[in-house]
Amino acid sequence: MPEFLELLPPPDALHVLLRSLPVLLQGETIATRDALGRVTSSPVTAPHHLPSFIRSTVDGYAVRAMDTYGANDSLPSYLSLIGEVPMGGVPDFSVAPGRCALIHTGGMLPEGADAVVMVEHTQLVPPEEIEVFRAVAVGENLLKVGEDVTAGDLVIPTGTRLRPAEIGGLMALGITHLSVARQPRVGILSSGDEVIPPEAPLEPGKVHDVNAYTLSALVEGAGGKPVIYGIIPDRADILERSARQALEECNVVVITAGSSASARDLTAEVINRLGNPGVLVHGVNVRPGKPTILAVCQGKAVIGLPGNPVSALVIASLFVIPVIEKALGLIRSSPRASVNARLTINLPSQAGREDWVPVKLIQDAAGTLAEPVFGKSNLIFNLARADGLLCIPADATGLPAGAQVEVLLMI
Amino acid sequence: MPEFLELLPPPDALHVLLRSLPVLLQGETIATRDALGRVTSSPVTAPHHLPSFIRSTVDGYAVRAMDTYGANDSLPSYLSLIGEVPMGGVPDFSVAPGRCALIHTGGMLPEGADAVVMVEHTQLVPPEEIEVFRAVAVGENLLKVGEDVTAGDLVIPTGTRLRPAEIGGLMALGITHLSVARQPRVGILSSGDEVIPPEAPLEPGKVHDVNAYTLSALVEGAGGKPVIYGIIPDRADILERSARQALEECNVVVITAGSSASARDLTAEVINRLGNPGVLVHGVNVRPGKPTILAVCQGKAVIGLPGNPVSALVIASLFVIPVIEKALGLIRSSPRASVNARLTINLPSQAGREDWVPVKLIQDAAGTLAEPVFGKSNLIFNLARADGLLCIPADATGLPAGAQVEVLLMI
Repeated sequence: MPEFLELLPPPDALHVLLRSLPVLLQGETIATRDALGRVTSSPVTAPHHLPSFIRSTVDGYAVRAMDTYGANDSLPSYLSLIGEVPMGGVPDFSVAPGRCALIHTGGMLPEGADAVVMVEHTQLVPPEEIEVFRAVAVGENLLKVGEDVTAGDLVIPTGTRLRPAEIGGLMALGITHLSVARQPRVGILSSGDEVIPPEAPLEPGKVHDVNAYTLSALVEGAGGKPVIYGIIPDRADILERSARQALEECNVVVITAGSSASARDLTAEVINRLGNPGVLVHGVNVRPGKPTILAVCQGKAVIGLPGNPVSALVIASLFVIPVIEKALGLIRSSPRASVNARLTINLPSQAGREDWVPVKLIQDAAGTLAEPVFGKSNLIFNLARADGLLCIPADATGLPAGAQVEVLLMI
Repeated sequence: MPEFLELLPPPDALHVLLRSLPVLLQGETIATRDALGRVTSSPVTAPHHLPSFIRSTVDGYAVRAMDTYGANDSLPSYLSLIGEVPMGGVPDFSVAPGRCALIHTGGMLPEGADAVVMVEHTQLVPPEEIEVFRAVAVGENLLKVGEDVTAGDLVIPTGTRLRPAEIGGLMALGITHLSVARQPRVGILSSGDEVIPPEAPLEPGKVHDVNAYTLSALVEGAGGKPVIYGIIPDRADILERSARQALEECNVVVITAGSSASARDLTAEVINRLGNPGVLVHGVNVRPGKPTILAVCQGKAVIGLPGNPVSALVIASLFVIPVIEKALGLIRSSPRASVNARLTINLPSQAGREDWVPVKLIQDAAGTLAEPVFGKSNLIFNLARADGLLCIPADATGLPAGAQVEVLLMI
């Protein structure tokens, strides 16, 4: 197997793939309320200041700060109450020296006032006077105009994935539509003479297609649009025809190869026929997933995954997700969700190879434990029994029991 | 404000709420391919063994292990090649002593054979003989029938959220439809005379509705179905009418109160009219979000959130998400996505109160740093500028610069 002579570790292999891919799909305009998880395709600037008027941050009285100087419990300031600021409206009065107005949290500061005294530090002297027991400084208990953002500020850069907080910020600015990257279409082909659809009754020697569905789910979670092209027999002409169609209709093509070496060679051969530069990496120094194929054809990523469902899912998270993120123009990938835990047993590993081990997380008094899921790594329910994956880096020869490890959550 | 005299910390307040809520919504049957993120409402058992036949895990030759005993590089065993196992089919031959058959990864072990020799440890002697240079034990390089799961095994318990791995496991078993919990409908009401819809032009004294959309996004992410009931003025009769309608049509009701104390009291008063037992908790010892209202009316959770968008989002993640998860019957909540980081500055805090501080994550040579986002905590773009939230527990009086902290990702 000459292709395995010089195997790159996953990060280097990914670099080879990504540097050969062009950037950015087109943008499209959608409603902000539908934009959760989408990625901005142009910068968003603030159309106005936020807040757009001076707002109180407490319930209390709008005052001139100077009128409260020196006030304390034994020597309060006395101010006469001239009115109440209407919520959502503009006060139709201004606050002259020696006067004050009732104001609620979020209310607009009336003219003349320059601070708010908290209601807790006052007492009403009926009918129209208040005692102030604590001095306030100019600007106290207020939000200034533009304190959150100033008109013209770049508030959300291009390439940002929108979370609930960004959706909220956009709405606060009255931005109800925005331009986001189109979701890349990811074509998924399952090859292998032994593979049958999940709805077909199981026959001896056959296995149900697992990869089309695990990969669809992964693609969906990463922000792509999965397109399933079905099960292809191990014949070069048929595989080529389906792969060409997928390449034409999609932005990324993923082929899960049959599990034998000959089926994998067939996949590589077919990928090379789809366009230049073709196969860039054939074999990666990782377990599981060594027989991975990374290619670029006609400017689009074509990825050959091992047929084993566990390898396919692990490798897709290492290579397919970053390709989708590049297609989306995602500038800064979000920190990957992980949990710190203590390894329960010694885990051996081969130097130079990156290993990914499914682990279960267990809470005990001392914190979180990571317990490797036993059994052969290529069993899909071993992955279903796991909470996450632990990486043994290429430069380690294993990890000792008790080691603090970072477990990437599978979500 | 008598309601704030005895404030519970968030975990205790949550316990009071959850213990008063009945369990489980109804289940519904859906296609497995659409089930990503859904929660099982009945246990899934395996209809058959997996694998359902003895499969090779390598490319090589199916042999009788005994025929290879003692074989090594200088003294190979010689076996005669009788055929090739067809991928996806049943071999129409059996392997007698002194014989072997070509087999590919995933192929079915022919009768008579009890192990597979890897192709790397053999050499073909044309036309029909192979040399074996390494002995194999019985069962070597094979997956046994039922090694992943046995027919009748409980493979996915009730209350499991389905990830790509579970979807794959279901498909492997040919389970193309399954029963999942209906998604709870979460009614969202925004109250406040100062609030206007995001599409309305901004007027002095008014602010755009932010909470309806941040909460919708959060509910969606947690597996609920958000239903927006619009903006309600600060009038008890109108708020009560809308809240009653939401309570009738939904499984959970969330009301973001106006920001003033009087608006919050109005919310509590209206909630108490909706049904027994009514308000259980009014005020929680947390910042931001002290004026939170937790209630149960007619067996459904009704939650009053502070109007400030940052408080509303933080509090919803502490209380609304667990309520949705209980309604879904989620048995074991997934570990929350987090990142370990080193705090850049001293953060003071009040003993007895749980504080949630928005932080930005910064990568430097020494690892990940957590830098608090400066500025008043109630500015929505401060949350948009943050990667996650850091918790200062109630029993701490702050955290020192350099402390290792766990940052919950906002995703």
